[in-house]
Formats: sequence, structure tokens, C-alpha cells
Amino acid sequence: MQIPRLNAELTEQILVRFLREEAGKFGFSRAVLGLSGGIDSAVSAALAARAYGPENVLALLMPYRTSHPSSRAHAELLAAQLGIRTELCDLSAAADPLFAAVPEKERLRRGNILARLRMVVLYDRSAREGALVIGTSNKSELLLGYSTQFGDAACAINPLGDLYKTQIFELAAHLKIPKSILEKAPSADLWEGQTDEGEMGFTYAELDRLLFAHVERRYSEERLGTLGFEPRFVAEVLRRMRRNHYKRRPPIVAKLGNRTINVDFRYVRDWGR
Amino acid sequence: MQIPRLNAELTEQILVRFLREEAGKFGFSRAVLGLSGGIDSAVSAALAARAYGPENVLALLMPYRTSHPSSRAHAELLAAQLGIRTELCDLSAAADPLFAAVPEKERLRRGNILARLRMVVLYDRSAREGALVIGTSNKSELLLGYSTQFGDAACAINPLGDLYKTQIFELAAHLKIPKSILEKAPSADLWEGQTDEGEMGFTYAELDRLLFAHVERRYSEERLGTLGFEPRFVAEVLRRMRRNHYKRRPPIVAKLGNRTINVDFRYVRDWGR
Repeated sequence: MQIPRLNAELTEQILVRFLREEAGKFGFSRAVLGLSGGIDSAVSAALAARAYGPENVLALLMPYRTSHPSSRAHAELLAAQLGIRTELCDLSAAADPLFAAVPEKERLRRGNILARLRMVVLYDRSAREGALVIGTSNKSELLLGYSTQFGDAACAINPLGDLYKTQIFELAAHLKIPKSILEKAPSADLWEGQTDEGEMGFTYAELDRLLFAHVERRYSEERLGTLGFEPRFVAEVLRRMRRNHYKRRPPIVAKLGNRTINVDFRYVRDWGR
Repeated sequence: MQIPRLNAELTEQILVRFLREEAGKFGFSRAVLGLSGGIDSAVSAALAARAYGPENVLALLMPYRTSHPSSRAHAELLAAQLGIRTELCDLSAAADPLFAAVPEKERLRRGNILARLRMVVLYDRSAREGALVIGTSNKSELLLGYSTQFGDAACAINPLGDLYKTQIFELAAHLKIPKSILEKAPSADLWEGQTDEGEMGFTYAELDRLLFAHVERRYSEERLGTLGFEPRFVAEVLRRMRRNHYKRRPPIVAKLGNRTINVDFRYVRDWGR
């Protein structure tokens, strides 16, 4: 089973309209987003520039002192191509006092601190600009929980959350994202030499085939074996999906009253705009 | 219409069991929480100490240089009474570089930065300790949206989210929270002289009566007038409830596939533990 080819033209139209309509419901017509130099935020930025006009999109570049210089260069290249505004906020001065309490070898803890500091700055600038925070998380990483809760996963609206990583590549090519961004190995650039696939232990191509069969086509764990997936790989991916499900849900509130937030006091996100 | 008196003894039992059971589902038996010196976090800490044992609860004290010294003193007093561990993390060094981009008069932006920095530290320590982040937001502030998204509102499980502020006071008295905490005016202490009631423009007693009638008893905006509430007060509270509803919900994901996260790919929070 393969993921069907993306109708990139139609996808672009749907997502541009989604961004415009959802922001409009909240009374917003401007956007901010973090531009990492990677492909996901590049695609989000390209869609936002089309939805709101490039002059209404602010891209934040938030390097830490160990970030790869090419990350910033790629982000600036894309911003220039799209004609969107950029703002640089070097996180080193804010991050270092927090890192003082975290041993250097604890790379995951340090990475999470950086991802969350980016959220802090992004939300601050969204308040300054009267702009909505546009998400950049794709479906593969959201399903796997391969993102930082209240960090890079935090946003108001997310145009990419229903596209697998391999589909992001298809959409990126259609949107004419620069080759230097398209062709490099996906990485959160949270530490030197980090790549997503190296860290996960499998490729996005394998992962997406599995997720597609399981999530979209509802193949059970047992039936996934009939598609030729290694049982250990299947078990590992499904374990991560379930284990990290909490990242996709609001906090659990202890029920005491008649109508409890997130239990039975529930409205759609744009209730009462 | 008045909010019925709380059965504080039963409420304590339910919430202690809630904390133990929900944490157990994720395989956790330890807790971290931010102790502000205020009444909400004091009650959460007291419940957590009973649920997990005081030795398994870590309270983080996270002052900024302008925080009132009594906030820390009250937090330490409570921690000593409960016998829980404390850790001090002064946020000034991390916050100041971020504040450099925010004019001093923008108190709300600065307050949100501090609230979110506290989340960053809290989640980092939760990773270090293998402990769950316990929430401290009450129902009044959650309904009003009077909290910082991805800041003080961020947690794994929240024992207080279904208790109105006035009920928190009843529970606090039952739990023998020190009088100095019980009797001071509620404040986020994000700037000098800030009090919740001064900032909101109404008292918790009024607010809770209104919220109780509207949320628990489903009085419509029109019918609330028959209870003697000022129409302008009613309109303002309902406007805030609807306007800030987004803070209580996960991000909106653009639907493209068969099963979309937060749309029709939904499980309970502890799915697959």
C-alpha cells in the first residue's frame, strides 16, 4: 500500500482558504510563525503568504548559539522569496541561564527548553502584532508525538497537521520551496548532527506508509504484518502513537460539577468568535 | 441563586483519588507543580502531598526580580507545613533578555512571558524527576480565560479545574492552608499591586454566582437578568468566556484526510497508556 499522490494544486487551494477563513473567524488577518529553515515551516510560510498577503506575515528566526548557520540562511532565503517580513531573536541569552541547571548531555531536555522558548517569543510577537500563530507540525510528527508539547506543537491554527511528511515534500515542490530546503535531511537542529530519521530510527517513507495504512485505512496491528512491515517496527510506532497521545489532548480536569471543562463543557474551537 | 456549600471532606477524597489514579494510568507516582504563594497552587500542593506522599512532590518557586517577597515566603511556609520538597529557580536572568524587546508598560505581554517561562522550567523539572505536572487553574479562571495559554494553564492533570474560586477557598480552609495565604487578595503577582479582582473589574463572589447560574444551571443571558445581575456585567463575562474559549481547546487542524487529529481522530487522554 502506498500513500496516493497528493493533488498539490487542490491542497494548496484548500489550505489557503482554511488559513483565511479560520483566522477571519477570530477577527485576524495577520500571521506570525517560526521559520526554522526546514521544510515544514517553509510550507506553512508559503501558504500564509498566499492567504494573508506577504506583508501580513511575520517570520521569526530564533537561533540558539549552536544552531547550524545554514538554518538561518535557509529561512532568510525563503522569506526573501516570499517577500514576508522577518525578525531575528537570538535565544542564547535567555536559554543559557535555563541551561545552567541542565547537564550538557541531557540533549532532549535542552531541546525541549529551546522549543518552548521559541513558543514564548512567538506568542509574545503575536500579541504585539495582533496576529495569529500559524502551526508548522505535520501529521507524521503529530501522530508519533515527535514534537514538544507547548513548544513547536503550540499554535492557533495548523494548515499542515493533516499532511504526512512525505506529502509535505510534494506540496513544497509544488509551492516552489527552494531546493536547498527541499533536499536537506529533516532536522530539528536542536543539537549538532541531529536528523529526524537518525533520531527516530526509521525513515519518513517507511513511517508514513505505516501510519497511512493504520490511521487512514484502519489496518490493525496484526493486519499491518500482511503489508510486509516488521512486527517490531509496527509495535514501536503504535507504542509511540499511544504513549504520546496526551500531547494532542488538553489537560485532564477532575470532574466534580455538572459541566466540566474538556469533559462535558465542550464547544468547537471558534465558539462565539 | 447561591453556589451550594462545598462538601470539602468528600471533595478532598475525590481529588486525592483522582490524582493518584490518573497519574497511575501514565505510570507516574510523583508530581511537580509551581508554588506561587497563592491559594490555588497551595490547594493543589496539599492535594498532591496527600495523593503521592510529601516526599514525592516537588514544588518549584520561580520568582522574578519584581515578585513580591511575600509570595516566596508564603510558598515556603506552605511547603514546610506539607513537608514537600522545594526548588528555587529565579527567572530574572532568563526573562530579562526577553523583556528587552517588550516595553515596560506592556505589562500583559511581560506577564505572559513570565507565566510561560514558568511552564518551561516546570516541564523541564518534570522530565528530570519523572514526575507529572499538576495543574493549579480553577474553574472561574479557566471559564473566563483569565490565564496564560501554554503558561500557568499548561499541565498534565488538573485537580482544581472544576472548582470555582470561592469553592477553592472553602477547600483551602478544610485543608488547613495557612491563614496568611487564605486571607490575602488573590493576585498573579505579575506586576506590582496587581490583584485579580482589581484587574478583572469584579469580585470572585459576583463572578462565581454568575458562572454557576450560567454554566451549571444553564441560565441563558436573558434569564440571568432575572437573578439580579447587571446586563453589562453579564454581557462582559459571557463575552470573555466565548472569546477565550480557544485557550481551552487544542489547535485547529485543517482537514484533508480520512482521520484528522482533533477532528475525527480522537481518543481519551489516556488512550493506550
